Amino acid sequence: MRAEMKKRYLGLILDLDGCVYVDGEPTEGAIEALKKLRGIGVRILYVTNNPEVTSEDSASRLRAMGIECSPEEFLTVGEAVARYIASASGPSKLLILTGRGVEEYCRQMGHRVLSLDEWMEAEYLVVGFDRKISYRRLTSGLRALLSGAKFIGTNPDAIHPGREGPEPGSGAFIVPFEYMTGMKPLIIGKPSRVIMELALRKLGMRADEVLVVGDRIDTDVKAGKAIGADTAITLTGITREEDLAEIPRGLRPTYVFRNLRDLVEKLYEQNPSSL
Amino acid sequence: MRAEMKKRYLGLILDLDGCVYVDGEPTEGAIEALKKLRGIGVRILYVTNNPEVTSEDSASRLRAMGIECSPEEFLTVGEAVARYIASASGPSKLLILTGRGVEEYCRQMGHRVLSLDEWMEAEYLVVGFDRKISYRRLTSGLRALLSGAKFIGTNPDAIHPGREGPEPGSGAFIVPFEYMTGMKPLIIGKPSRVIMELALRKLGMRADEVLVVGDRIDTDVKAGKAIGADTAITLTGITREEDLAEIPRGLRPTYVFRNLRDLVEKLYEQNPSSL
Repeated sequence: MRAEMKKRYLGLILDLDGCVYVDGEPTEGAIEALKKLRGIGVRILYVTNNPEVTSEDSASRLRAMGIECSPEEFLTVGEAVARYIASASGPSKLLILTGRGVEEYCRQMGHRVLSLDEWMEAEYLVVGFDRKISYRRLTSGLRALLSGAKFIGTNPDAIHPGREGPEPGSGAFIVPFEYMTGMKPLIIGKPSRVIMELALRKLGMRADEVLVVGDRIDTDVKAGKAIGADTAITLTGITREEDLAEIPRGLRPTYVFRNLRDLVEKLYEQNPSSL
Repeated sequence: MRAEMKKRYLGLILDLDGCVYVDGEPTEGAIEALKKLRGIGVRILYVTNNPEVTSEDSASRLRAMGIECSPEEFLTVGEAVARYIASASGPSKLLILTGRGVEEYCRQMGHRVLSLDEWMEAEYLVVGFDRKISYRRLTSGLRALLSGAKFIGTNPDAIHPGREGPEPGSGAFIVPFEYMTGMKPLIIGKPSRVIMELALRKLGMRADEVLVVGDRIDTDVKAGKAIGADTAITLTGITREEDLAEIPRGLRPTYVFRNLRDLVEKLYEQNPSSL
């Protein structure tokens, strides 16, 4: 790819796990790369499908690794779910079968978070990665849907890598409800355009001003394409160099970088024309 | 249907829940009907997808309702799973994520039932209705499959009626593993021909000598058709009279009876030619 083809994006929409850090450790060159981007005024928004965290949690985590940031630079799937429901239906009654991050944002946004026994009141069922999955949670969620609750899913990941081996992804917790009811969820997190449009609004930018960066083709690249943005893969997480040849044509990223340092060098340092 | 078309079957393969009893109470006329069948020498085999029970449990339950029977007259999905694996692979190491009935038969049949931590040793993963579903169980099952375990499912029911409302069916516990791994399970319980062939063997009869009776089109009738047997629906459980018009052509039962009393009257009493 020729240097003059490269664009100096005003904003980066960055994935966290697999891109900025892996197993709690910053990826190679990430700390310096993010510092440089900050120094030249590139706006960053970290967008994550993790339903267990809040922006405050994520910001503390990055700061503990030596990466400067503020909670306003994050958009979690929990915040996206809470905002989507608020704008679609106003304050609503929600049965939430996923992480604490989703619950906290939903409460903050004025929604009522129901207990498992209150399924008959649910206007929305929100399902995603659920460490607390149980027979009672499955039954309450099923009954909420059959009683007319709308069906929201955080994200469709099948599995994700854990420290000790593969772990169930959010999609594994959503499919039982699809199977039991025949209903399809509205997905809010990446690769859905719902979270990506909220990301652009939070940045105050248009899709052609941002680059969407992550380690997963089916999540991050797909999400970028959903809003028509340019996309980049970093080879620091799920996607390996040998996987690149097998990416379907419609999902090929605009760029492939070894890591975030490589991204900064190629897009901003070898390309010194002003922003 | 003309009386002379009706056949006096030597054996009946009967469903339990929804056919012989509902919510722990015998269905209308069931006690007398089963007594008459016994009296005229019709062999009965109760076949159930319930993974939580053993034949002894089921026999005690029927006897408590006043229905004479012995444990040899039952075939549970647990016994079918244990026998299938024994005949396919000999004594094997199993990770079992479903009810106690399956575990007991598998132990009796000489299989080793692994703990959740022993997933790496699993030769088979057996999944079905699982009151104890948890994140840890999902993770162990996932890792067993990714390590090469064969994938067995008890039965694909989406939901089943409970006393207080719909409850998740076995299929809801199986689909997460399909979704996470892309693998398809071998289904052993109804409507699979696997359990039905074991049923014929247990009765010592051919498919054209038996009638398969139950309350569910997608389970009992489909199971009967899987072995080419005649089938009957009783309107005592899931299937209602108004559902009959919507049954797809390929799944129409040979007979529809109001209940087991109606079956005995129509097939054996108005049709007194010898067996």
